[in-house]
Amino acid sequence: MNIEMIRAAAARLSGHAVRTPLLNSSFLDKIAGRHVWIKPECLQHTGSFKFRGGYSALSALDPETRAKGVIAFSSGNHAQGVALAATMHGTSAVIVMPSDAPQLKIENTRAYGAEVVLYDRATESRDEIGARLSETRGLTLVKPFDEPQVIAGQGTCGLEIAEDARAHGIKEATVIVCCGGGGLTSGIALALEADAPGLRVRPAEPAGFDDVARSLRSGKIESNPAKTGSICDAIITERPGDLTWPILKRLCGPALVVSDDEALDAMAQAFLRLKLVSEPGGAAALAAALYHSDENEGDDVIVTVSGGNVDPTMFVRALERL
Amino acid sequence: MNIEMIRAAAARLSGHAVRTPLLNSSFLDKIAGRHVWIKPECLQHTGSFKFRGGYSALSALDPETRAKGVIAFSSGNHAQGVALAATMHGTSAVIVMPSDAPQLKIENTRAYGAEVVLYDRATESRDEIGARLSETRGLTLVKPFDEPQVIAGQGTCGLEIAEDARAHGIKEATVIVCCGGGGLTSGIALALEADAPGLRVRPAEPAGFDDVARSLRSGKIESNPAKTGSICDAIITERPGDLTWPILKRLCGPALVVSDDEALDAMAQAFLRLKLVSEPGGAAALAAALYHSDENEGDDVIVTVSGGNVDPTMFVRALERL
Repeated sequence: MNIEMIRAAAARLSGHAVRTPLLNSSFLDKIAGRHVWIKPECLQHTGSFKFRGGYSALSALDPETRAKGVIAFSSGNHAQGVALAATMHGTSAVIVMPSDAPQLKIENTRAYGAEVVLYDRATESRDEIGARLSETRGLTLVKPFDEPQVIAGQGTCGLEIAEDARAHGIKEATVIVCCGGGGLTSGIALALEADAPGLRVRPAEPAGFDDVARSLRSGKIESNPAKTGSICDAIITERPGDLTWPILKRLCGPALVVSDDEALDAMAQAFLRLKLVSEPGGAAALAAALYHSDENEGDDVIVTVSGGNVDPTMFVRALERL
Repeated sequence: MNIEMIRAAAARLSGHAVRTPLLNSSFLDKIAGRHVWIKPECLQHTGSFKFRGGYSALSALDPETRAKGVIAFSSGNHAQGVALAATMHGTSAVIVMPSDAPQLKIENTRAYGAEVVLYDRATESRDEIGARLSETRGLTLVKPFDEPQVIAGQGTCGLEIAEDARAHGIKEATVIVCCGGGGLTSGIALALEADAPGLRVRPAEPAGFDDVARSLRSGKIESNPAKTGSICDAIITERPGDLTWPILKRLCGPALVVSDDEALDAMAQAFLRLKLVSEPGGAAALAAALYHSDENEGDDVIVTVSGGNVDPTMFVRALERL
């Protein structure tokens, strides 16, 4: 895993991924007590940064392997990212999803061209289903974060942050990244290490699912006791990945932990001040910047709004807090 | 009014305005039956393209005149655009607003640094109040659309559309622009005439307030009988401007007229598929692309989502239609 892989992924994604801008609002600056800059990856294809990793992984496969199709396990944003990336490459994707996944996400994944295989979380093994499908059909597994070309794809977001920070004269800043398994966080950290060494990444996590926060404190991989129980479903993972963890450990500052209510409040502010639709997990970094000011330092903070795939009912819950 | 003024405005705005991207979604393509490209000016500072015109006008004033301050009449997006542009130039802005303007817009205008002067629509004359303030305090009036430097500022949006269309290989397309007094529409039309002659502008208007549609049909300026009565308040004006009208007449194709319900449906699609917050008037062009397919032609249509300053209650009304 190195910066050259990220630069190569950026070349492959050029013209295919959305070059998202860097936004700001004086209203948010006032809440945070410093300049807040927002990287709106909710505007990325499929509504989250995951398209970058999916497209990077698909485009890195040799054509023969790619033609056989890919497979992914995901109930959420990774599913949609891989599905669209496969369609754009003229190949097929099988997405294995729990049968209790939100209907909208299942429908969207199908609409992007994927074959969705549902399984029962209680009685079936996702991995067994996946292994059987991969073997019989020759599909290549695209992991959600612990996969070099996926991390490289997410890292392209960091190259853009470095470029735009430079254009705005930002030389030193904290970059808060919504963190699940650490694909986006480690990718951005590697990109900034090379292109903007004055910018330091800090992960943002939901309360109760702060495996990365605790891992960074203890210096070794820690796991979450629970698997569900936050509205920030997009960034709930059991533990940091084997590939992402050493990068997080080497490059990241302490993680920030936000409550579900803070995530909802950040969604409301993103609606009101940025005109962005964000999902709870995608608003975690903004929540950390806005509502944990005393845990931050410096004049500038940059945050990812990493996804916007939210059901209307959840979005209305956020708006009701205004 | 010429292209060189737009290019000069672009140079002045560079680094101060948001360089908005061009977005798309296969879901919207399916609804429209052609490729739909979205210019999200709701992401512009102050939540609408109006910042471009305000900043352009302020930056074009000689420093001595500018230092005395500016004045604008507006209950909406123009007010916020001028207010922030004045603050960014270190000068003052007086915004004359009807006392029944939405509280959020009054508060936002004040928060951007302007002095808000309220008047009673029924008993007071906006123009008299403005004339008195201008005279006694030496303020320069910044008109919302019938002002060359404002049109030049809005035209910078067209330069960006031309640049991004070229990058996507789009040589011919209809560009539907949300149209009130015609500042954005005429500015974009002038920019495209110079930089992308295969792209032709068509205005989008709300039903009942289709003065530009009727003017383009009759070949002379027509007025709206009513002054209020559509949720698309941002693009309701009595008639096209004296400066904008000749440009609209020379360069625009027939206008498209959308209903309030279509604007709400377009807002819901922008939420779901683009992760954008749009206001009814800002979603009119998208509504025309999505729900008036038979009135459009060609493989590609480009639309402005020109503003996102919407109250949560109106936004919820749109979401309820999903």
